[in-house]
Amino acid sequence: MKYSFRNDYSELAHPKILELMLNNANEQNIGYGLDKHSERAKLLIKKFIDQDVDIHFLAGGTSANKILISHVLRPYEAVISVESGHINVHESGAIEANGHKILYYPGKNGKLLPEEIVQAILVNCDEHMVVPKMVYISNATELGTIYTKKEIKAISDVCKKYNLYLFIDGARLAQALACNENDLTINDFAEFSDAFYIGGTKNGAMIGEALILVNSFFKDNFRNSIKLNGGMLAKGYLVAMQYECLFTDNLYLKLAKHAVDASIVLKEELSKDNIEFFIESNINMHFIILDNKIIKDLNKLYDFEIWKSLDNDRSVIRLVTSWATNINAVYEFVDDFRKLLYD
Amino acid sequence: MKYSFRNDYSELAHPKILELMLNNANEQNIGYGLDKHSERAKLLIKKFIDQDVDIHFLAGGTSANKILISHVLRPYEAVISVESGHINVHESGAIEANGHKILYYPGKNGKLLPEEIVQAILVNCDEHMVVPKMVYISNATELGTIYTKKEIKAISDVCKKYNLYLFIDGARLAQALACNENDLTINDFAEFSDAFYIGGTKNGAMIGEALILVNSFFKDNFRNSIKLNGGMLAKGYLVAMQYECLFTDNLYLKLAKHAVDASIVLKEELSKDNIEFFIESNINMHFIILDNKIIKDLNKLYDFEIWKSLDNDRSVIRLVTSWATNINAVYEFVDDFRKLLYD
Amino acid sequence: MKYSFRNDYSELAHPKILELMLNNANEQNIGYGLDKHSERAKLLIKKFIDQDVDIHFLAGGTSANKILISHVLRPYEAVISVESGHINVHESGAIEANGHKILYYPGKNGKLLPEEIVQAILVNCDEHMVVPKMVYISNATELGTIYTKKEIKAISDVCKKYNLYLFIDGARLAQALACNENDLTINDFAEFSDAFYIGGTKNGAMIGEALILVNSFFKDNFRNSIKLNGGMLAKGYLVAMQYECLFTDNLYLKLAKHAVDASIVLKEELSKDNIEFFIESNINMHFIILDNKIIKDLNKLYDFEIWKSLDNDRSVIRLVTSWATNINAVYEFVDDFRKLLYD
Amino acid sequence: MKYSFRNDYSELAHPKILELMLNNANEQNIGYGLDKHSERAKLLIKKFIDQDVDIHFLAGGTSANKILISHVLRPYEAVISVESGHINVHESGAIEANGHKILYYPGKNGKLLPEEIVQAILVNCDEHMVVPKMVYISNATELGTIYTKKEIKAISDVCKKYNLYLFIDGARLAQALACNENDLTINDFAEFSDAFYIGGTKNGAMIGEALILVNSFFKDNFRNSIKLNGGMLAKGYLVAMQYECLFTDNLYLKLAKHAVDASIVLKEELSKDNIEFFIESNINMHFIILDNKIIKDLNKLYDFEIWKSLDNDRSVIRLVTSWATNINAVYEFVDDFRKLLYD
Repeated sequence: MKYSFRNDYSELAHPKILELMLNNANEQNIGYGLDKHSERAKLLIKKFIDQDVDIHFLAGGTSANKILISHVLRPYEAVISVESGHINVHESGAIEANGHKILYYPGKNGKLLPEEIVQAILVNCDEHMVVPKMVYISNATELGTIYTKKEIKAISDVCKKYNLYLFIDGARLAQALACNENDLTINDFAEFSDAFYIGGTKNGAMIGEALILVNSFFKDNFRNSIKLNGGMLAKGYLVAMQYECLFTDNLYLKLAKHAVDASIVLKEELSKDNIEFFIESNINMHFIILDNKIIKDLNKLYDFEIWKSLDNDRSVIRLVTSWATNINAVYEFVDDFRKLLYD
Repeated sequence: MKYSFRNDYSELAHPKILELMLNNANEQNIGYGLDKHSERAKLLIKKFIDQDVDIHFLAGGTSANKILISHVLRPYEAVISVESGHINVHESGAIEANGHKILYYPGKNGKLLPEEIVQAILVNCDEHMVVPKMVYISNATELGTIYTKKEIKAISDVCKKYNLYLFIDGARLAQALACNENDLTINDFAEFSDAFYIGGTKNGAMIGEALILVNSFFKDNFRNSIKLNGGMLAKGYLVAMQYECLFTDNLYLKLAKHAVDASIVLKEELSKDNIEFFIESNINMHFIILDNKIIKDLNKLYDFEIWKSLDNDRSVIRLVTSWATNINAVYEFVDDFRKLLYD
Repeated sequence: MKYSFRNDYSELAHPKILELMLNNANEQNIGYGLDKHSERAKLLIKKFIDQDVDIHFLAGGTSANKILISHVLRPYEAVISVESGHINVHESGAIEANGHKILYYPGKNGKLLPEEIVQAILVNCDEHMVVPKMVYISNATELGTIYTKKEIKAISDVCKKYNLYLFIDGARLAQALACNENDLTINDFAEFSDAFYIGGTKNGAMIGEALILVNSFFKDNFRNSIKLNGGMLAKGYLVAMQYECLFTDNLYLKLAKHAVDASIVLKEELSKDNIEFFIESNINMHFIILDNKIIKDLNKLYDFEIWKSLDNDRSVIRLVTSWATNINAVYEFVDDFRKLLYD
Repeated sequence: MKYSFRNDYSELAHPKILELMLNNANEQNIGYGLDKHSERAKLLIKKFIDQDVDIHFLAGGTSANKILISHVLRPYEAVISVESGHINVHESGAIEANGHKILYYPGKNGKLLPEEIVQAILVNCDEHMVVPKMVYISNATELGTIYTKKEIKAISDVCKKYNLYLFIDGARLAQALACNENDLTINDFAEFSDAFYIGGTKNGAMIGEALILVNSFFKDNFRNSIKLNGGMLAKGYLVAMQYECLFTDNLYLKLAKHAVDASIVLKEELSKDNIEFFIESNINMHFIILDNKIIKDLNKLYDFEIWKSLDNDRSVIRLVTSWATNINAVYEFVDDFRKLLYD
């Protein structure tokens, strides 16, 4: 079996999570997220947030995006996103399926620019057009970059000026928090946004995203929106237990740190060989440009994603490390890679 | 802590499932249900079905209903259901949210009648009305009753006559299969329906429903519909592993049998006390009529659902046993109940 | 050509409307309802209403219902209607297509009962269910009956108590206002409801319903909702001109009065022959029960709608008079009918 | 009152249409487009088309786009459009409101390029993405350009290759047919597309678009889709009468020819003054670049649309002639314009 650098959700769950589950296997819990694990996990997360927020544990990112966006927008309202945004590209039209247009802009390095938001407002100016009402960004982005505090603040300021909601997709929030360049805290996300989520699936949980509602207008009847979008788990405590575990002893950040550290090792090693990076990613993934010949051979030994074709001869591959990555596997990968390069 | 007869999803998962997960904890799997556990689980299920079917592992019943129904119906097409149907009452408008009207009928004992389907066809006869195109039934029903082979065939025949799809919600299919009055097999459901599902969440799994697509028209692009409805799990192998386990050594049926057997014990004991049953349920749940005074006292000792109020003095409570029910707890319940009755 | 009592939209438009159009044929107007005819027509209507309302001219009843309901409800919110309500039966699922469940009740004589609204509130009590948020009634109803002031007030009071919107479909509001039993004014509808419309299509206009928004929450961005539902006419002044005409010299009421008066003649004559009425209708339509043999013969001479089959031998037919009905045609109909009855 | 070059729907209707309406004012017709005018108008249009098509008369362009697109696409399917396409910019999200993503591309001169369609297919390649299934183009385009037969054929060929539907918005089809550069016939549109419409509202009708369904798959239950989108007019014969008139004695083309001819005069005159055109438009509209100072003064004398701001000093204005344009008004405009330019 080839070792996989395909993504950060290849392994089932962190052992501590499985252990907690085993310990609670015979326990009876009430359904639909009204259990005491949910209460406990919410308290653990709320410790990181100054404001009075509502927390909902959901099954996945697309589900979280779809529920939140459709819950708050009116039929004629649109959401602004960078072109590479997950909602714009990788959700098979989930947001449009609930009736909302995505106004997308090129951005820079996977990040939406404040001036693009202003442009959306200026262009969509009469009743024949949609009304831009929400800004959607991801941190980390789809390209592995992160927003600085200054950048997030600038976006938040534009949103406030134009009366837009700011929603932050945090499927890889942990990895963003864990990287060296980060200057943001969980509380900052609550400060700057109307809603955001703290991803679990890509950071050691089997399943689960913790959606944080900051804006009080978002809170009413939110569980109805979860239910009507098919997102309410009968065994809500399944997700809650995992957050209980992740937010105990700082496990959440430790796992992300492991993923990022492994990624730094990988980057440093690859840099020694003057490998060309497609983008300067900050988190636990690197996009590198290779000859198709090398890619083919490398793929016989390791599993990874071929991100995109650049031209007839070269493509970009994505290498992802995770909370579960064995650091030895990284070194072995580098060794094998060098053999292919220099043999 | 009070023992709970509230439902059959109070405990996390059967130990064998947790055990399999532990054993596979370090294994790397590809995402989104394209892994080898999914392949294996599908093969195990397909052994029970003669026809060539597609199988998709989904997170929950509402999600399965919403995805399947919206995948196959055109905008003007409607689904026929019994009034107490899950899609009609307990999904916060999930089917309408995807654009489809539910035409509902009173039915009998929670079961839709063939003549009600005919009525839907006859009444909705011109282009100012919706076009009935699918029949939705549950087996077991929301009231714990089950369809006989003859009844299902009669419905299936009407569907064929009027060119309607038949979709069977099997959130409690296992419990239906396990009860003494059942004369249907998994293969029968594939014979009679266009699609059905084999519920996991209420029969020992943490999460998961196995949706079986029989009608080949349903199969195209089904994964897109899963995705756009937010139902595609990154760690699809999480659900697959559980079905792998449930469909090994007949565990699926054994668990349901345990639930039903416990229920029979409960029923026999309650019958000795001439307790009035609200409906003659077949599976792992009983609906009994009690004075509100008794209910209040009983509720101090045990957890259960108060199903509905009958009049000022009496209500119906629902008592559910499960794969995890301790048979001693049933006897204790009966003892405590008798004390309340006769003291 | 057979004379038609099929409906009240068989003739193109009242001559005064066509005359006004001819007079304005060369005039240039700005599009999309921003013209001076629209302004003028709004002022003429506002004279009848004390409150500060917004008025929008729309193309038809289904469009008005769909736009208004989807504009104000959130995704999980439902609308309460009598079973025979136009939105529930005759809009091919237009309301569900925009995502909302219709909770329907039998009512009495085509009218919704206050206690049915209360029932909807009591039953839909948790987040697994839809949230009832609007009551939809029609005046006149689909069965030709009208609400009394007392009845409307009772419904309005329940709506206020439970924080529900009240929306009144007035496709045949004129006919309701014109009938002898009516004790309501246009201003009353503004008093009791959050929105209602004053139908034109069935009262002498070519096309058009004047939607009155009373609740200020409904007013924001309403034109966006008109546009996104495909309801914004490029030549908005087309509808406005007609309302300008209808609300000059009381033409609106005169036309409805003509329709109702013709209907009274018809009723009185039919009563002499002891014809059985299916329902006691108030407005310009009668539902009468006849032998199928008589219906068949009558249909050779006149056009009308066969409303429903009662049994093997008898059916209900609907006879509609209108603003355009020639009173001689009514007497001729009665004569011909009697010949069939007694020959 | 200022003379208006704002658009081609400023005047109510061509006198011949009003005349036909007057002549038919007392006639009784059956509702909902099932009348004999509809039959007659369909026959008149079908003379221009070799294939066996279905024709539906609809109220407006946005409504036609919304109904057609939602009728044929499945939930996960998307429509490809040029960025400036009406559905993408000027329908307040009508297509997304019915659940479908619009994949848009820059195009050239308002026209979509075949290679952009190919790109949409190549990029949207897995089940996490939407499935491109329809190409939407307008002829004439929003920028007043027209497709050549060769261009339409190239797009049609790509659609056939990739199994995509081709839908042509013909709100200004008449004007496209009437311009000198046109080499396409109505029959060609039926040949190359799966559906298209022949616009009335912008070519002398009060209201109305004639939607032509070529692809037989589109035809089933289409009236249900019209109804559920609120697009079915009670007095369907209102639109039909207008098409009856427009398709008698070639009035349809004559009106468009008048509009285009007036536009050519305008262009020739403006060219004499070396006015800069923003784009080389073919039909009855010109986009010219002027100093804001001139625009302001000109706007005191004439009504027109300020299309977009170019920079601080200059903007683009749109000048539209129509079937109703008085050629003297064009010359007066040119005179007044020159005075402003040279005084």
